[in-house]
Amino acid sequence: MKYEEPLFLGIDGGGSKCRALLIDAVGNVLGEGLAGAANPLRGIEASKQAILEAYDKARIEAGLDNDVTESVIAGVGLAGVNLPHLKLAMENWKHPFAQMHITTDLDIACLGAHDGELGAVVIIGTGSCGLSKTDQGDLEIGGHGFLLGDKGSGAWFGLQLLQHALEASDGLTLESQLVADVFAQAQCDSATELVSKYSFATPKFFAEYAGLVIKHAKAGDLIAQNILSEGANYLDQLCKKLLDTCPNRVALIGGLSPFVEPYLSETVRAKLSPPLKEPEWGAIAFAKNQMQLAIV
Amino acid sequence: MKYEEPLFLGIDGGGSKCRALLIDAVGNVLGEGLAGAANPLRGIEASKQAILEAYDKARIEAGLDNDVTESVIAGVGLAGVNLPHLKLAMENWKHPFAQMHITTDLDIACLGAHDGELGAVVIIGTGSCGLSKTDQGDLEIGGHGFLLGDKGSGAWFGLQLLQHALEASDGLTLESQLVADVFAQAQCDSATELVSKYSFATPKFFAEYAGLVIKHAKAGDLIAQNILSEGANYLDQLCKKLLDTCPNRVALIGGLSPFVEPYLSETVRAKLSPPLKEPEWGAIAFAKNQMQLAIV
Repeated sequence: MKYEEPLFLGIDGGGSKCRALLIDAVGNVLGEGLAGAANPLRGIEASKQAILEAYDKARIEAGLDNDVTESVIAGVGLAGVNLPHLKLAMENWKHPFAQMHITTDLDIACLGAHDGELGAVVIIGTGSCGLSKTDQGDLEIGGHGFLLGDKGSGAWFGLQLLQHALEASDGLTLESQLVADVFAQAQCDSATELVSKYSFATPKFFAEYAGLVIKHAKAGDLIAQNILSEGANYLDQLCKKLLDTCPNRVALIGGLSPFVEPYLSETVRAKLSPPLKEPEWGAIAFAKNQMQLAIV
Repeated sequence: MKYEEPLFLGIDGGGSKCRALLIDAVGNVLGEGLAGAANPLRGIEASKQAILEAYDKARIEAGLDNDVTESVIAGVGLAGVNLPHLKLAMENWKHPFAQMHITTDLDIACLGAHDGELGAVVIIGTGSCGLSKTDQGDLEIGGHGFLLGDKGSGAWFGLQLLQHALEASDGLTLESQLVADVFAQAQCDSATELVSKYSFATPKFFAEYAGLVIKHAKAGDLIAQNILSEGANYLDQLCKKLLDTCPNRVALIGGLSPFVEPYLSETVRAKLSPPLKEPEWGAIAFAKNQMQLAIV
């Protein structure tokens, strides 16, 4: 079965998971799908597989055969493709779709948050980064990935916490319920086990510890509060840089944003607006924009 | 040619390089050798190759044939073998020596620094860690490896500096000569290039930036001073924990120790003694101890 009119696929491929949204030409939602991490920095093939898996789930939910794939116009937002060699590797993919348009996860998140209009976003999820899209052009800040950047992200919070837990196990800082909870969640009895398990862990695994930082910060643990404040302070500076570009709207998005928002400055919080749509919708808006550009 | 008396080989295998010292049964130095990184956490095979390469260089410098290898009793100190699975992997090696006795790089450094006697050391090199050996037993602190631990080490200083350089390139902190020097040393023109080059770099490569931190801290750069102070503060706490065990002597060792020492507290600095011998000598002392234990 070949569709007379194209189907549109929006892909939001991040460091922890990959979401797919499949709609018809007039905007009806046909199906949605979810797969694992899709950041090509952690593996080009894994990224492609995550995109295909998320798409297949959406297509199957829609009750459509694989034949429709050749009618699908895909907009794909991916973490990591701000690095030129990774963008090129993904663009060289012999994908099964009619068309595939690739941009950053940040770009589609921004387009989604402002329903296809200009605006600024700060993502606080497994990673962290900021983007302002104005008439004057785009300003992107952060988004340097785990280890070198991504301060204030889930992976960063988790790493700080694990480092603290190891210092506490050395007797360099006090033992606490927070530290006990880290070892319990990791299912490790010793520092050696924790090191074996996490020395080469990916951001996704560190981000699983962000919840403990937030929970114990709320409960009054000073270490957790310091970690949260340090991350939030960085994100606050990032928001202020974006506000300097006078964007139409500014939105915080990503799973950790509701928890970090209370730690931002009053100045910044007063200027935030809620995000309007999910990044998958932004990915579809991006694909439609690219098609129009191609026609013009 | 088979030696009537055994030869002793001391190996100091760290995260940046592997040193070998070959002596005869009465303690005369026959030869020395140097090879690349030997931390099995970064690859078991690479670690074995580094040990063999450093040994071969020492043997060749000594003017000895490969036949002598079966008379060699090796003491091997390795980074990473505090992790049981890595120690086991190295112990299962079908090595070419008469005997091979494995312990941590920290253990042989301590034995070397105190000429085979009890004492305490703090290593400040590519990684960081502390050990106190007393009549009451051993106390080991830190040494959790890059990413989760190793605060105040060369790799840690370098990572902090690269993170700072990326924040500066985003306009979140001021540009400075320090930041310009980072991009010059990395031979990178942009943040994107720096991220591509260093996102998965090993500790050794980050440690190459420690020199810039030290140089600019001396020259008055506040960021460099803050990084150096934060690392030194951690190492100072670590020294104090070791001093609590009342060791005979305490020595700082490792390439960065002369540069970090001035940033430690007066209390700690007053109690430091110079290291007496290199870790390779400690590795030989360890092998000799193990042989005596086997005889008893």
